[in-house]
Amino acid sequence: MPLITIGSADDPRLADYVRLRDVSLRRHLETEQGLFIAEGEKVIRRAVEAGFRPRSFLLAERWLDSLADLLAGTPDVPVFVVTEALAEEVTGFHVHRGALASLHRESRHSVDDLLGLRRLVVLEDIVDHTNVGAILRCAAGLGWDGVLLAPRAADPLYRRSIKVAMGAVFSLPWARLTDWAGAVPMMREAGYRTVALALADGARDIGEVAAELGPDEKVAILLGTEGDGLSQRWISDADDVAIIPMQAGIDSLNVAAAAAVACYVLR
Amino acid sequence: MPLITIGSADDPRLADYVRLRDVSLRRHLETEQGLFIAEGEKVIRRAVEAGFRPRSFLLAERWLDSLADLLAGTPDVPVFVVTEALAEEVTGFHVHRGALASLHRESRHSVDDLLGLRRLVVLEDIVDHTNVGAILRCAAGLGWDGVLLAPRAADPLYRRSIKVAMGAVFSLPWARLTDWAGAVPMMREAGYRTVALALADGARDIGEVAAELGPDEKVAILLGTEGDGLSQRWISDADDVAIIPMQAGIDSLNVAAAAAVACYVLR
Repeated sequence: MPLITIGSADDPRLADYVRLRDVSLRRHLETEQGLFIAEGEKVIRRAVEAGFRPRSFLLAERWLDSLADLLAGTPDVPVFVVTEALAEEVTGFHVHRGALASLHRESRHSVDDLLGLRRLVVLEDIVDHTNVGAILRCAAGLGWDGVLLAPRAADPLYRRSIKVAMGAVFSLPWARLTDWAGAVPMMREAGYRTVALALADGARDIGEVAAELGPDEKVAILLGTEGDGLSQRWISDADDVAIIPMQAGIDSLNVAAAAAVACYVLR
Repeated sequence: MPLITIGSADDPRLADYVRLRDVSLRRHLETEQGLFIAEGEKVIRRAVEAGFRPRSFLLAERWLDSLADLLAGTPDVPVFVVTEALAEEVTGFHVHRGALASLHRESRHSVDDLLGLRRLVVLEDIVDHTNVGAILRCAAGLGWDGVLLAPRAADPLYRRSIKVAMGAVFSLPWARLTDWAGAVPMMREAGYRTVALALADGARDIGEVAAELGPDEKVAILLGTEGDGLSQRWISDADDVAIIPMQAGIDSLNVAAAAAVACYVLR
């Protein structure tokens, strides 16, 4: 764990950490460089314990002690020691928890792996990282086996997703679909009963759908984007269309709340 | 609707809008001045339609047309017209939706009003505005009648709460408790069955608790802070302690997801 004190925000060794709030910059940088960022001691520990390999750490000095055991376990990984002001200058925001790590990105599971699991949550175009993180946490907590993401859904390894997921993104299997149009037919072929959650004509109460599920039936919940919900394509391809009964005059629940209810009711 | 073009971020007429990201500044400023901020055309409309009186509007020029009807309906309220750059300089962030309003804060309901309603969600020390907003939206959507907030819970009229609640904060009755220690006994006295959601010894499956509720029974769900959950005091004062059964090794759901499940199951 070579300790390297950094004195300038322009130091190229900090390239992994620049402008963490600039979503479009980060999206390119992280996928092209094959990295992701973990923020805060707890999340960093979980990532490393889950076997993700750190590229470097960026720490304010006061974090050296509390992370000493972890740093000792990764002896070749550089530790960049910075003031909090410098960390803020590089990242573009106040790093509340004072500790960041850059880790190697991995695709740990294939879509085929996921299709062997019994209960899946499938995210169509959910573009908000907070929602993706919250849904992963929910799915894991409520006993679902994995998450599939449509090509345009937000990145589960984006800093904010990871933070909200509280590490579930490291433990719960997930994979990215490459074929949006063929996704639901593929799931049906793999034996899933596909349940679309949507405010669509003919949708049935989710409790009624839940009551019909067999004890060992493979189930996939389909969840759509924050604004417009699921695409017509996915809705018409699904076996069931379910709604959570709502009060008149109220907009739908946000997608993370709807996912929580659906994961609970269909579990 | 006097249109006033503003050329400087220091113009004292913009005092309602300064540093919207500075939570502690805003907390003091908004409660002392008796105002709250609505962001985005949709939310501004809902606030005005719900009868909240605007103090002023802060708009980029391109929003004048789409809000023309609303501005015409509030002829005495000044409309400050600014460039997006100036709006950013004043508020401290890029105002994505280009439109802000400052409105008079009102306490529309008393705790006594709320205690006349059948189904309440009660927030202990939930300090995150996003969570408060999400829970209000959930409670309204799933047919709960009102929300009580403990003295330290976050402000439902804070900009971020309002945004996440999607206007439910204007339609759903809510009130602030002044007595934390006496809150649960007071609710029991008012005839509620109080159900604490907590990972506590002896907690029962929430589905089991739900099955015992009578069709007209008054019910209050108690929800605790993000980190530590409900206080021991509220847990021991409650009639029931319920948990949402979770997978081993996973942290609890976040409080907004747990609230969604609880509002659904106990509805």
